[in-house]
Amino acid sequence: MSRNVPETPVCILGLGLIGGCLLRDLTAAGAPAYGWNRSPETVRRAVADGHDAGADLAATLARAEADRALVVIAAPMPAVGDLLDAIAEHAPNAGITDVVSVKQAVYDEVRARGLADRYVGCHPMAGTADSGWAATCEGLFRGAAWVVAFDHADDLQRAGRAAGARWVEVFRQVVALGDAVGAEVIPSRARHHDRAVARVSHLPHLLAEALAVVGDHGGALTLSLAAGSFRDGTRVAGTRPDLVRAMCEGNATALGEALDQALELLGDCRRQLAEEGSVADLVEAGHVGRTRYEIRSGRRELAGGATLSHRPVIRVSPGQRGWVAQLEHAEHLGARLEIF
Amino acid sequence: MSRNVPETPVCILGLGLIGGCLLRDLTAAGAPAYGWNRSPETVRRAVADGHDAGADLAATLARAEADRALVVIAAPMPAVGDLLDAIAEHAPNAGITDVVSVKQAVYDEVRARGLADRYVGCHPMAGTADSGWAATCEGLFRGAAWVVAFDHADDLQRAGRAAGARWVEVFRQVVALGDAVGAEVIPSRARHHDRAVARVSHLPHLLAEALAVVGDHGGALTLSLAAGSFRDGTRVAGTRPDLVRAMCEGNATALGEALDQALELLGDCRRQLAEEGSVADLVEAGHVGRTRYEIRSGRRELAGGATLSHRPVIRVSPGQRGWVAQLEHAEHLGARLEIF
Repeated sequence: MSRNVPETPVCILGLGLIGGCLLRDLTAAGAPAYGWNRSPETVRRAVADGHDAGADLAATLARAEADRALVVIAAPMPAVGDLLDAIAEHAPNAGITDVVSVKQAVYDEVRARGLADRYVGCHPMAGTADSGWAATCEGLFRGAAWVVAFDHADDLQRAGRAAGARWVEVFRQVVALGDAVGAEVIPSRARHHDRAVARVSHLPHLLAEALAVVGDHGGALTLSLAAGSFRDGTRVAGTRPDLVRAMCEGNATALGEALDQALELLGDCRRQLAEEGSVADLVEAGHVGRTRYEIRSGRRELAGGATLSHRPVIRVSPGQRGWVAQLEHAEHLGARLEIF
Repeated sequence: MSRNVPETPVCILGLGLIGGCLLRDLTAAGAPAYGWNRSPETVRRAVADGHDAGADLAATLARAEADRALVVIAAPMPAVGDLLDAIAEHAPNAGITDVVSVKQAVYDEVRARGLADRYVGCHPMAGTADSGWAATCEGLFRGAAWVVAFDHADDLQRAGRAAGARWVEVFRQVVALGDAVGAEVIPSRARHHDRAVARVSHLPHLLAEALAVVGDHGGALTLSLAAGSFRDGTRVAGTRPDLVRAMCEGNATALGEALDQALELLGDCRRQLAEEGSVADLVEAGHVGRTRYEIRSGRRELAGGATLSHRPVIRVSPGQRGWVAQLEHAEHLGARLEIF
């Protein structure tokens, strides 16, 4: 795993869990990075922890424009539109990315403002049930999937054109950002990303919420008997409701499809339980699914402490002939990207 | 937390995860304990690890009868009937308990054989997704809930009678067993226990299985993007399917009710998502439920390294006037029991 320090300054808008952890990792790596947060109290804490942060959005973006920074939108979906407006006004040439957990909705906002030729979305698949600067730490993204969305290049290719040099430069910067924090970069188009995370990130939240309610309705004895399976199964229900809503509601179509599948599986299981006293079909299929996930998510330790991911690798040279097709291939395999 | 070493020998039938961990804890505490397992290979491993174990069921039970041991059935529900038959034949006076995850079905088997006056069921709320002797360790039960079922005393009281001295002695032994392994003893009647664990132990398995299937159906990219919420939400789908089926199918009625509630909550959420683009109702209720669970399951560290449970305490003297009513009170509160 190469861990190059990005040369491009990184300007992070929003110092919650993801933005804050990113600022910590970059600062620790000696990379030029600074942040903005709406709340002066959060800014005060970040500065007290030795970070470069401010509460003046226009000034922060003017600085990003001046030093040709990569601007990272690290705010929940409902705040994205206003931040893009501010970027268009105060940083008219800066590269743009975001770490929002849905990608199509962000891309739509970006295109509506004509910013697509300097925007490459990303999504680090990492987090905890806690939020805010107080929850931030170093190393959150180590080994995590770091999705990089290449929709703009894909859209242009379908129209017989190639992405411009500026977009390819931003693409390299966003890949370098994931690399710098120890993540594994996985290319995906927004709609495929959104369908995937509906299944493995947003649906888990809804199932956790439902389980928490059913347990709670059981009363004191029930909560007193709750152990590991309930603790783990409800963990993400500890996340702030507004953050869960922003994720789920920003991905309503794909989440609806995933939820329909879960309802069908559970409904079939309910019928098999009533008619045959058995839960065999669901339990056997679920065990296969979990096993397949364990194989995919496994890591092997190498001598010297490095680890090797079980994800396949695709090597790509951005901007070269055929590179978008290679990204599509990597997306299909869920492969991680190495660029050269 | 008092940690008295039981004086009564403990004879454990089944050296899988729960039975094996129990044998390890008792042996480590210096308590007289030995085990039986059907598989000679498991017995060989247990003996190689320094434990007293054999593969001859009749001989093991004859030994339990001779030394007035407490016999612990630590096998899945489908094996319980045969083991009770063997106990009735070879250990006609030994006290009997079990660690099976359903209590009404075991109690029914016990009553069908006329063994209720020397049987007190229990259920340690602990485990991992792994199984077999290889998965055993010391300390699995530390701080866990250790349900002790007092149905026999309750049934007799409803008939105007009191449990006999032998039953009260077995009750004390089963409480002492939980105490010896560092668990917190919580009294409950079988039907209330079964309804509670359907919500906090069996339903979590079905939701985990469904989530694992929906993730797996998403294909390679989806599994590649799966992170913490999917990992935790599907963890127990790694459990051997026959063990999950034994648990769930042994508690079909209560599990069906819990699953119906989950289906209703998720169905309502699906409608709110389709009609309003919102998941507010479920997410807000789930967050409240999780928070209430966190409060109940919390532990506070004391100076010196001991911890204090957030579960309330009820002190009871077994066999004394009014003690069954006190157990019912504790059950209602999900309180842990201290006996004197």
